[in-house]
Amino acid sequence: MSDTFDIVIIGAGPVGLTLAAAIRRTGPYTIKIIDTKPDPTLCGRASGVQGRTLDFLENMGLKSHIMTCEPGKVFEVAFWNPSEDGEGIRRTSNAYSYPDFIDTRYHHSTIIHQGHIERILLEDIAKSSIKVDRPCTFSDFRMVDDNAYPVQADLKSPEGNTTVRAKYLFGADGARSLDPVTFVWSVIDGVVKTDFPDIGIKCTIHSKSGSSMIIPEGRNRTRIYVQLQRTTDPNEELWSKYKQEDTQKLANKIFSPYKIEWEEVDWWSMYPIGQRLAEHYTDRHRVFIGGDACHTHSPKAGQGMNYGMFDAQNFAWKFHQLQNGFAAPSLLDTYEQERRKAANQLLDFDIRYARLFSSRPEAEKEKSKGEETEFMKLHRTAASFTSGYEVNYGTNGLNWSQPAGVVNSKAFDPTGVKLVPGRTFPTCSVTRVIDAHPCELDLEVPFNGAWRIYIFAGDVAATGSAMADLESRLAAPASFLRKHAKDTTLTWENRHGPQSSCFTFSLVYCNKRSAVELNDVARGFFAPYRFHIYADDISASGERGVPGRIYEKMGFDKVKGGVAIVRPDNFVACCLSLEDGAVTADAINEYFQNVGSTVS
Amino acid sequence: MSDTFDIVIIGAGPVGLTLAAAIRRTGPYTIKIIDTKPDPTLCGRASGVQGRTLDFLENMGLKSHIMTCEPGKVFEVAFWNPSEDGEGIRRTSNAYSYPDFIDTRYHHSTIIHQGHIERILLEDIAKSSIKVDRPCTFSDFRMVDDNAYPVQADLKSPEGNTTVRAKYLFGADGARSLDPVTFVWSVIDGVVKTDFPDIGIKCTIHSKSGSSMIIPEGRNRTRIYVQLQRTTDPNEELWSKYKQEDTQKLANKIFSPYKIEWEEVDWWSMYPIGQRLAEHYTDRHRVFIGGDACHTHSPKAGQGMNYGMFDAQNFAWKFHQLQNGFAAPSLLDTYEQERRKAANQLLDFDIRYARLFSSRPEAEKEKSKGEETEFMKLHRTAASFTSGYEVNYGTNGLNWSQPAGVVNSKAFDPTGVKLVPGRTFPTCSVTRVIDAHPCELDLEVPFNGAWRIYIFAGDVAATGSAMADLESRLAAPASFLRKHAKDTTLTWENRHGPQSSCFTFSLVYCNKRSAVELNDVARGFFAPYRFHIYADDISASGERGVPGRIYEKMGFDKVKGGVAIVRPDNFVACCLSLEDGAVTADAINEYFQNVGSTVS
Repeated sequence: MSDTFDIVIIGAGPVGLTLAAAIRRTGPYTIKIIDTKPDPTLCGRASGVQGRTLDFLENMGLKSHIMTCEPGKVFEVAFWNPSEDGEGIRRTSNAYSYPDFIDTRYHHSTIIHQGHIERILLEDIAKSSIKVDRPCTFSDFRMVDDNAYPVQADLKSPEGNTTVRAKYLFGADGARSLDPVTFVWSVIDGVVKTDFPDIGIKCTIHSKSGSSMIIPEGRNRTRIYVQLQRTTDPNEELWSKYKQEDTQKLANKIFSPYKIEWEEVDWWSMYPIGQRLAEHYTDRHRVFIGGDACHTHSPKAGQGMNYGMFDAQNFAWKFHQLQNGFAAPSLLDTYEQERRKAANQLLDFDIRYARLFSSRPEAEKEKSKGEETEFMKLHRTAASFTSGYEVNYGTNGLNWSQPAGVVNSKAFDPTGVKLVPGRTFPTCSVTRVIDAHPCELDLEVPFNGAWRIYIFAGDVAATGSAMADLESRLAAPASFLRKHAKDTTLTWENRHGPQSSCFTFSLVYCNKRSAVELNDVARGFFAPYRFHIYADDISASGERGVPGRIYEKMGFDKVKGGVAIVRPDNFVACCLSLEDGAVTADAINEYFQNVGSTVS
Repeated sequence: MSDTFDIVIIGAGPVGLTLAAAIRRTGPYTIKIIDTKPDPTLCGRASGVQGRTLDFLENMGLKSHIMTCEPGKVFEVAFWNPSEDGEGIRRTSNAYSYPDFIDTRYHHSTIIHQGHIERILLEDIAKSSIKVDRPCTFSDFRMVDDNAYPVQADLKSPEGNTTVRAKYLFGADGARSLDPVTFVWSVIDGVVKTDFPDIGIKCTIHSKSGSSMIIPEGRNRTRIYVQLQRTTDPNEELWSKYKQEDTQKLANKIFSPYKIEWEEVDWWSMYPIGQRLAEHYTDRHRVFIGGDACHTHSPKAGQGMNYGMFDAQNFAWKFHQLQNGFAAPSLLDTYEQERRKAANQLLDFDIRYARLFSSRPEAEKEKSKGEETEFMKLHRTAASFTSGYEVNYGTNGLNWSQPAGVVNSKAFDPTGVKLVPGRTFPTCSVTRVIDAHPCELDLEVPFNGAWRIYIFAGDVAATGSAMADLESRLAAPASFLRKHAKDTTLTWENRHGPQSSCFTFSLVYCNKRSAVELNDVARGFFAPYRFHIYADDISASGERGVPGRIYEKMGFDKVKGGVAIVRPDNFVACCLSLEDGAVTADAINEYFQNVGSTVS
């Protein structure tokens, strides 16, 4: 008999660790996680955490741990190009990393070493007594005749070879092989002394001596990328020839007339840039891959770790919903479908971005001062994309817009609603009724693998009968959610999922907080959601007691309200009208019955 | 020979510990701190941290430690009074703790146990290897003939009696004796189960069975105050007679028809409410007292710890400036002058607040529904006061408005400027030029005992010559600040005080960040302040790149600018015009020469 696990995770980098951290939040699953390296990453490597990724980490309760590290925050980017007189470089333009039109809480990307991220995640999973087995190498797997634990994996460690059995196997062990190399870069992390004025912000520098990029890392530390050479072949010789000093010399050539002196060097590395997208993310619905194992690309837009973490998030909640029998096994088919689509978009972007970045300035037509170069233009238009909020899974078995063959189809997509199924549920500040705290609605339910059903209950004076109808029908024996709900007492500890680990409700009124009487609205089926009742009463400028901002943003009727079913990963699943009678509850039922039978 | 110290602090409660934490930030002083109790406070006791106090703690880098404790945050207050039909209680009104008109970053008071505050401060001072000697009791002191260490203090500990010598002695050992008792209250901290809807916010309850107050403490914990009886004599019997159960029973009577059940009790106590203000805060300019040793009052407005902490802050920077020879010894005279004035204002407020609070509802004329009672009215009008931003030291030797007998008097109080000498420098969001971070100008220099000289340098295209004149005159041999400036190299570590531990400069331009060229403005005398150059370019709604909001708020000319000299405790000292020629530098000189010779 071999050991059995709900999931075995191969690789304890940011992706594998995020998967373990995400799954442990959904339930008491048995998780084995292994890594070939004897120790975690200590410094250098991936460092960019984009806006939406920070939202996710905040939703896992990890943002404060990240901020304790005093990470770099990139609010602006400067573009430097050769001086017009042919000597040295000049700043040709500035841009915000995330322009004001991007709907984000934090107008910066966050720069934190992979070592810190790994440590934070390791400390997190240790709270569920999960430790990484290392060094431990995965060698092979096979499917065996066991309904409960059908995957058998062979592992090698200094103690010898072992075999484990698992329900699922997830490969997060990074890029498989050296893919075709397009560019070779060198990177130095450290403390510099310089008269270059933009050392504190992100910069891209195109000079006649080559290209470079500056990333501020916080606490006076700086990362400098230097492009070493363009090549179409992996050039083994290059790796042995180049020294740290060569990179530093080249950097000074590129930055001339400014001088850069390294007072300390934390890390130095060289690497080739390749591109690859795996054809499949899964093998027989039991073995999955995510992160660099699926997709590799240039590090220039700071996306790699982010996409990998979202692979992990997407898989984690689907895994949980299946284990609980709330969702049908076909739910996991949407993992590859959604995440491969996202990676494809990234690779398209990356090709354009990396080519432009690596092109010599002469190759790009010189523009007159003030006019945007192609590169600057791409940067601006791509800000929504790089921040992460642009990801769009489209409609599919989970994301319903104008669904066909649905009995209650007229309840879906109420007129005026701006939420888009398959895109992220937007940021929104509301006031919590029970304690008058202003809070962020999208973060109020911590990531726990549960669906978030938001009842935008309109004006408390107008929707009494619609809410009573909805409540009583959700509580009826035929209700899908009722069938999956436990009868438990609401406590402070279980407040985010009092009835189930698979779904939770929030009620959002379009009223001033003090107009919503807690004991009147938290009743019947909604009684356990006393801690999740909100008033949309904070104006755009932060004034309190002014109802309607979020209703306007989402397009719900301020009197009649509506319903948003949001996935556990904060993507919008579908929107419904809130009406008297059976239709709203029936439509909710119909949506979830589909999740529970076949997601197609 | 006895041990010698720069300062000996009697009492390691929040006030004594804040003093030690504040002083250690100003320089490497030798500090002895003692306490009679063998252990720090573990639970209960003082808990309200008001808005301006949170600013101060944030300025000491301690806010994140406080937030890690998940403290209670009080955003709203509800007022409950007897029902109109004579049975039970009804909510008659709601109010924001800090209405939107209060200029604060955080619209809440923060509820954190004294035990947490003490632990955070103990951990902080341990970073300078300062430990509390405990149990250790102060018995007496005398002045001795020693210019360096003129105060001799006698201390008693289990190891025996010792004598220490100090430059200064500071008594932060709490209330001296039982003052005339006006009211007796009981307090319970714990976890309650209740159907009372406002358990999550602050409430004052007047019922026919008595008065009560609810304070939410965070993490589902609640403090409930119950007034036991009104008395004019200390009643020893009361203390032995009453039990926790009696308080709980009385609370249920007061809250009827709502029920309150205690699932856990963390702390239970009873105490009388007295009022006292010490006649003097100092003895022979060498021995000082602060906190409850000076002023005691009711806990109802949550002020006690806050005033004590500001006593400590006020003393700490003045102590530092004297030790460095930057300020004249008479600077310490302003400690009593300013802090006794503030305490007097508090006691005035407290008398009115406590009387109204403790009055039976029948005693106050019943108002018709919707109309404000006296108590509600006082609460509303007092919000500025309780938040802490209302404190006004007025003009004195430090705070100059239209100063008489000053050569450059016409440079002071430029037309239109709204900053008030003797009041706090307001909150303001600006963009840091070097790294494009949005930041809070008033918190940018950490509390370090140094004056904060803000050059509001107007439009970068217009003030070049005024700034060049100011810079060269500040750098001239006759300049008071130049004389107190060291020639050091700017480093990341010394960036908040590159020239001196007694003053620092910040430059604030009324331009878009990208219009301020770092290498052009950080030159000459201002070169070491490269990390403290800002652009006022964030609009009220948070839009970036829109100059002028802070200039408008403070009333400085957006083109010509001006100067604000701000004290180390963030109180405005004086405001100056920024002009071509000598006048601005001369006025700065004149102000500081006065600080350095005689503060009167």
